[in-house]
Amino acid sequence: MKLSSKNLDTRLDTVYDAIVVGGGMGGLSAAIYLARYGLKCLIVEKGKGRSVWMQDLRNYVGIDPDTPGSKIVNHATKQAIDWGADHLRGFVEEVTDEGETFAVKVKVGKKDSTYPVFRSKYVIAASGVIDVLPELENMQNVYDYAGYTLHVCMICDGFDMWDQKAVAIARTEGQINVAFVMNWFTPYISVLTNGLKVSDEMKRKLADHGYPLYEQPIAEFLGENHKMSGVKLDDGTIVEATTGLINMGSIYHNQYLKGIEGLEYDGENLLTNDMCQTSHPRIFALGDLKQGLNQVSVAVSDGTLAATQIWRNTRRAAEPRKWEENIKTAV
Amino acid sequence: MKLSSKNLDTRLDTVYDAIVVGGGMGGLSAAIYLARYGLKCLIVEKGKGRSVWMQDLRNYVGIDPDTPGSKIVNHATKQAIDWGADHLRGFVEEVTDEGETFAVKVKVGKKDSTYPVFRSKYVIAASGVIDVLPELENMQNVYDYAGYTLHVCMICDGFDMWDQKAVAIARTEGQINVAFVMNWFTPYISVLTNGLKVSDEMKRKLADHGYPLYEQPIAEFLGENHKMSGVKLDDGTIVEATTGLINMGSIYHNQYLKGIEGLEYDGENLLTNDMCQTSHPRIFALGDLKQGLNQVSVAVSDGTLAATQIWRNTRRAAEPRKWEENIKTAV
Repeated sequence: MKLSSKNLDTRLDTVYDAIVVGGGMGGLSAAIYLARYGLKCLIVEKGKGRSVWMQDLRNYVGIDPDTPGSKIVNHATKQAIDWGADHLRGFVEEVTDEGETFAVKVKVGKKDSTYPVFRSKYVIAASGVIDVLPELENMQNVYDYAGYTLHVCMICDGFDMWDQKAVAIARTEGQINVAFVMNWFTPYISVLTNGLKVSDEMKRKLADHGYPLYEQPIAEFLGENHKMSGVKLDDGTIVEATTGLINMGSIYHNQYLKGIEGLEYDGENLLTNDMCQTSHPRIFALGDLKQGLNQVSVAVSDGTLAATQIWRNTRRAAEPRKWEENIKTAV
Repeated sequence: MKLSSKNLDTRLDTVYDAIVVGGGMGGLSAAIYLARYGLKCLIVEKGKGRSVWMQDLRNYVGIDPDTPGSKIVNHATKQAIDWGADHLRGFVEEVTDEGETFAVKVKVGKKDSTYPVFRSKYVIAASGVIDVLPELENMQNVYDYAGYTLHVCMICDGFDMWDQKAVAIARTEGQINVAFVMNWFTPYISVLTNGLKVSDEMKRKLADHGYPLYEQPIAEFLGENHKMSGVKLDDGTIVEATTGLINMGSIYHNQYLKGIEGLEYDGENLLTNDMCQTSHPRIFALGDLKQGLNQVSVAVSDGTLAATQIWRNTRRAAEPRKWEENIKTAV
């Protein structure tokens, strides 16, 4: 059922089998499986996730390569609700482990917000990451290109940069190294650091590869209809490029887990076993929040695995259902 | 490019980066990624795989739940070819490790078969499994229900059996235990062994759950329009059931790998690392051929992982592409 501030009161006494934090590709896959295992689940989706930034999804079996992420998310949200999942637009502020259950505090509504608390046996962390973008005065200028010809994922979109003039945008020296991987797809790479000064060693390495370095701040992206033609820097320099990769790191949407003891991380990535179970046996993590590739196909598979393990645990703890009528007849 | 006996000669001197054995969901995912990494790959598809038996695919994010597997396979085959993969209808008879390359011998054509040999650096085993079905004199009667209301995968279709009268069909005593998992979805289970006699211990366990046992051979499935109404046994008994699960094991399509030394298996399942690499560093295995869940979402993710690891290996072994023009200018 679609929940909102108007009807969520009906669910405050429910103990869900699982609350899925994040209604992107991974979370929706988990919810569809959970619902089809006959388990009660609630998806809490804050909106504006990485999936819906994708203007096309080129690598996913079964989908036309020009399908926008938002279309798939809307489709799968409807499917999850049709199979029996609950779905609420809101922001998970805090998860508290109460022993048998979790208390999940959700902020609902931007104005006059309320803070209902839902309960579940399991939590699936599927809230993903969001890419750091260059901070320009006019952010709309960034949004006009990011996700179109200015990419954030080389694995997804490297092919579409093939032998084009491209910018690689970094904000740390380590992130500049992406140029030496991206050159698989194109050698015509200009590196932009948006104000960061880099070491002489990196300068030499870039020069040795023929990749120009621009340390000036970015003024604006040039082009039209989402098609880049170049980047203008603060000093008026124009760097020609018809495509680019932003490699400025990610923000992890996992703050709500910070109060949970014993969760193990590698950097910001949660450590999980082969069924996406974290070091806390009742918390699972999917997709971009865990180690591994940040790919839709991986997140969707992760949702399958987490939901299946939760079903197995739940089933094994339950009494077997007998065909009572036959047993009575036999007595 | 679509290959056939007419044009495959053009590829006999090619050394592919990878040959993908099996053009189901996993193999096609691998091929789409490989092609978009700019790697040369050939998909060899024998036809009639498990994917195309599926009459609907209910659990896969982004797809309407009544979409048949064959539609998705056709769609993704076209997509892989569009991105640059080669695709050949044929049956892989043998894979020989030549050190740097594999020789992959393919049977092409049912009549007047030819046996071309293709070469590749990597092999992706994506040929899957096929479910064992009850062998009746009239197999069409089995095909009329299998994949519709008579299921072969409980995880996929358990939900659709909810509280219905169901048969569980096994051919070993161990396989009968599926009834004690399937009872999560319905307790109204009749167990059919199609001629197998079972131990007194199993009889007692079934009786204790109220699940009738029928050891007689199956004569035919009853119903119409793919909707089961029951099963008729050899002695004329009719077992009422509107759905069922066939749990008679799987045949693994991995014979072509039997000549490869050092591949490690768990039973028939290939052991792989977290990038789907087998114990042979140039052979990867996907989906149902490896350990883990036999689910489309998992196979599709596996294809992503295997292709990405092959790309990483290939890229790391290659010379970096420099922007030569800039280097010359600097001299």
